[in-house]
Order: sequence, then C-alpha cells, then structure tokens
Amino acid sequence: MSKKAGQQSLLLDPAPFLSSAATVAGPMEGKGPLGGDFDLVYGDLRASQKSFEAAERKMLQEACSLALEKRSFNLADIDYFLSGDLLNQITVSGYSAAALGRPYFGLYGACSTLALVLSWGGILVAGGFACNVLAATSSHHCSAERQFRYPTEYGFRRPTQAQWTVTGAAAALISAAGESPRITAVTIGKVIDMGEKDSFNLGAAMAPAAASTMILHFQDLQRNPRYYDLIVTGDLGQVGAKLLRQLLARSGYFLEQNYNDCGLMIYNPAVQQVGAGGSGCACPGVVVLGHLWRRMKSGELKKVLVISTGALHSTTTLAQGDTIPAVAHAVALEM
Amino acid sequence: MSKKAGQQSLLLDPAPFLSSAATVAGPMEGKGPLGGDFDLVYGDLRASQKSFEAAERKMLQEACSLALEKRSFNLADIDYFLSGDLLNQITVSGYSAAALGRPYFGLYGACSTLALVLSWGGILVAGGFACNVLAATSSHHCSAERQFRYPTEYGFRRPTQAQWTVTGAAAALISAAGESPRITAVTIGKVIDMGEKDSFNLGAAMAPAAASTMILHFQDLQRNPRYYDLIVTGDLGQVGAKLLRQLLARSGYFLEQNYNDCGLMIYNPAVQQVGAGGSGCACPGVVVLGHLWRRMKSGELKKVLVISTGALHSTTTLAQGDTIPAVAHAVALEM
Repeated sequence: MSKKAGQQSLLLDPAPFLSSAATVAGPMEGKGPLGGDFDLVYGDLRASQKSFEAAERKMLQEACSLALEKRSFNLADIDYFLSGDLLNQITVSGYSAAALGRPYFGLYGACSTLALVLSWGGILVAGGFACNVLAATSSHHCSAERQFRYPTEYGFRRPTQAQWTVTGAAAALISAAGESPRITAVTIGKVIDMGEKDSFNLGAAMAPAAASTMILHFQDLQRNPRYYDLIVTGDLGQVGAKLLRQLLARSGYFLEQNYNDCGLMIYNPAVQQVGAGGSGCACPGVVVLGHLWRRMKSGELKKVLVISTGALHSTTTLAQGDTIPAVAHAVALEM
Repeated sequence: MSKKAGQQSLLLDPAPFLSSAATVAGPMEGKGPLGGDFDLVYGDLRASQKSFEAAERKMLQEACSLALEKRSFNLADIDYFLSGDLLNQITVSGYSAAALGRPYFGLYGACSTLALVLSWGGILVAGGFACNVLAATSSHHCSAERQFRYPTEYGFRRPTQAQWTVTGAAAALISAAGESPRITAVTIGKVIDMGEKDSFNLGAAMAPAAASTMILHFQDLQRNPRYYDLIVTGDLGQVGAKLLRQLLARSGYFLEQNYNDCGLMIYNPAVQQVGAGGSGCACPGVVVLGHLWRRMKSGELKKVLVISTGALHSTTTLAQGDTIPAVAHAVALEM
C-alpha cells in the first residue's frame, strides 16, 4: 500500500516498473556526447514534415511506438496515455493522443513534465487504477523558439545565460509487472515565484523550485544526497545549477560528484554553442529515459533521483510585466 | 478498493466526497438564469485588476478560498492543488498555485478540465494518496477571445454557431471524509478527431468525443441514460448538443428530458446574445459546482453524470491548416 511520506512525498508500494523507455532526438542532440544513447536520431530538424510542430508530433509518436515495441506491447495494452509539452494548448500531446487512440490525461508543467508524467503514471499503477501507462513528453528547438522568443530565422543573438531548447521526445512504459528500474517515490512540488522576470535566465527562475522540492524530498524520506548514485536536475543549466548548489548548502545539503544537470550533460559546449546548456521537456526526457535508463539497466547506477523543473510563464504574462513562477517535481528510480 | 470497469472506466471505492464547492462568476453570468447559485458575482469584468488575465486569476483564487471557507478548511489541510485553464501555458492555474503554495498538478484539457480535475482528484483520494484535494478551473471571456480569436475591442461579428466563453471560476474540495455528493465513477476519454476545422463551431468538433465517452461510460458500467437523474455535457451548445443526440441514437441510446448541456443552461438566449450557448472551462465549472451541487444538496438530484468536453487546438495548429481534435471525460456524482 502506497503511503504519504512527510509533507509532500509519496512512497509507491508496490513500486511500478519503468519497464520500457525510448527516445528520439534531433540532429544537434545526436552529435552531443549522449548521441549514442538515443534510439532514433533525425538528421533533419523537420523530420520530413511540413512544419517544426508536425516534426515534434512525429518524434513524440515515434518515441511512443519504440517504447511499446521494445517490450512487444500493443497500443491496446495501454490503459492511459499521459503527455505534456511546451506548445500552447499542448497540441503536440493532444494530436498524438488522437493518433494513439488511448484514454488521455494532458498535463502542463513546462520542462518539469517528465517528472510529472512519471509521477502520475506511477500513482495510477501503484494505486491499481492501471496496469500499463504510456508516459511521454517532447520539445523542439524551433517550435519553442518561434512561440516563446523569436523565430530562429531572425538570427536573434542570445545572451549567454539563455538555454537551448532540446529537440526530441521521450516515452516510458510504466507497468504493474515488468523489469526494473522501479518508480519508488515521488515528490510533487509547490510553485515558487521569487520575482525573476528575465525569460532568458530561466535557470535562475527555476533553481529555487528545484531546491524546495529537493530539500522536501530529503526531509520527507529522511534521506541525504548520498543515498542516490546520481541526482539529476533538468534543466537548470550552468546558472541555475550553481544557484541550486548555493541554495541547498544554505539548508545544510551539499551536492557533490553525484549531482549533475541534464542541461549540462546533453551538449558538448566546447564545440556546440548552446549558451548555459540545454532545456525543454525533451532535455530531461532524452537524458533520463535514453542515457540514464541504459546506465541503470547495465548496473552502473542503482538509485537515481530525477528532479525536473519548469518555468510556468507565457509570452502574455511576460508582456504584462509578470514574474516567472517555477515548479519542480522529483521521482526516485531504483533497480 | 477501486477497480477498472469495462474498457476505460474506474469505479472509485471508497468513493471520495465532493465535500465543498464554490463558484465565482462574471457580470453576464450573474444576470443569467443561474445567477443566484453562484457564491460571488463580479459586476466588473476586470474584477478591479489591471488586466482580464489578472481578473481570471483573482476569480480562481476567490473560488478556492470560498470552497475552503465553507468547510472551515485551511490551505495547510490541502494535499494537492489541481487546476487547468484555457490560457497558453495555463498561467491562471500556475500563478494561482504560486499564491496558494500547495503541491501542484497542472492539467490541460481545454473545456474538459472540470471533469479532468475531478477525476484526478477522485483517483488521488480513492487511492489513499491524498486526504484532501482542491480541484479548480476557470475561464474569462475576454482573455480567451484575445488569445483564441480577436480582441473583443475589435467588435468582430461572430457567426451564430459560435459559443460564448463564460467568465468565472469554480473550485471543489475532494475529501476522504466529508459530506455527499461522492465521486463514484470516472471515464477518461480518448481524443477524437473527425476533421472539423471551423474554430467557430467547436460544438460540432466536440460532439463525437462526448458521444464516445458517454457510450463507453454506459457500456463499461452497464448503465443506461435513465440511471441518472441528470446528464449534463459541458459545453456543446445548440449545435453540438443536437449532434450528440443524433450520434447516441445511432448507438441505441436515446437522451430524454434528463439530458441538458451546461452551455444551454447558463444564459438566457432570449435576452442575452450568446450565439449557440456558453463555453469555456468555467461553463461546466460554475453550472456543476454552483447550480447542480446545490440541487444535489437539496435532494432534488441524486445521481448526476457530468461529461465535460474540450477542443484541443491552438491558434498555431489552425493557422497551419490542422483539424480540431477533441476530448471528453465523464464523472458520476451520487448522493
């Protein structure tokens, strides 16, 4: 029987299995240091589609198909499809849900979506509400830039603290029976708004939310950072990851070599111009479900804490002078 | 113990209590036939705020506060805040979550959001993952028109099949212990895309999704429409409600006097110019949690089936020539 732990964490029991995972990435992500860990890499940002938005949908649906194929599952075996993305009205998820034809929960958590869909999928399975859930997320550099900032064709010069939205998609099969890793605990975050207004510095906006959720996770479960072989945030980038270390140190938690940020792992900054690092729903998506899932399956990592972080503004709220609220959710994966 | 029923329904056991509900409405909704059933009616569309978007946030937060006050609950008693709205990046919900300070699940289902948050909240409480959940949704005529169609200041002439977005907000307290009505069953819908492209005729786009979910609900639970004292869709309007009757009749289900649509209930079309009826997340929100909740508490209605429907397009997908996919979720409320 699952139970509430501390203030806002849940221990899932029986812990659902993350029994399959698949990732699809764009050309730049394929050339990064983790390129070999993605199941499918597109050389074409448009993925032979008429628009970047359609390309993102194709990638999300490919990731879902691959996750099912790996375990010889059919769509009919899936009780629920859970998905979210960055686009207005999460249309990548909505159109993909129409294509997949399974009962659909749409979620919005910006770049925190990976942890959100894994948490909700874990709850549905642990609670006996579902046997198999397909949880997915995606982002695309060009569809996100067009919507949130400037069309890439403008050649707009980006400040160094800006992050680079990852192109790709990730899908996981969460099951009552299957193979490890398992989703053993989740911590659903509060929305934190520290008054940041610079949409080119989302790492700074999101770091306090990551710190809040991470500290609560440790307190609720009476763990310290060394409990985990690896703790990853996704995606704070250089600016946010540094701030997170400072915020945690103030509360007596010191992040050591076992901490990293998905936004700092996915690209090679020496040869790829990505500002402060990667971002977007697909950033923790492909790093966790592509790279880390393989490292867990190979036995290299046994306990991984994933804290994905999202900035919850829109272009309308920015234009109206509002601040940027942020949220982070944590998911513990264990072999 | 909750269990899956049929293809895609869930029987919640122990059935969570919808132990408090509160609604806030705008000036036009206050003058409609159900105006007396809303807890707070604003005479000013801006609710003394700097923008329509800020007014919508204020309404959502007011509805949440009122729902808690009615049962003498504090925010600290709430395990999770679940919310969704129509605006890009569901910012009304995100900023409200920052103000409320409780762990937050953000959902997007367009005008299906009411059933989505009630379902999700019901699952969390029935599964023992939470004792008290605050589930909310909102919409605002002017923030929605500005985003999806034309700023209202343009004085754009609307076709007769267009619906009128309701201004208001609704919040419900879903609890493990409390007073009836209870959420006894939910049916999570599939996304249905029949190729409709007219964003001024969303009732037509959503009717097939409502029919799909409603038929599955009846089949899964082996019920017929007469099981319920009232079945409400929200919001198909005149065009969609007529289509729904036709689609159901084709499957052998005949909707009689116990069927209505929230979009047809909220305004008085003889004196209010609202095209084919009301729409928006707040339309089923205030009709169900304001009007119907009172009729259930008074003993007039004992079994109510709520099917809220959402169109999942965005202005980008419309501009790119895509169709309008739609979804509907069903929630059974029983005394």
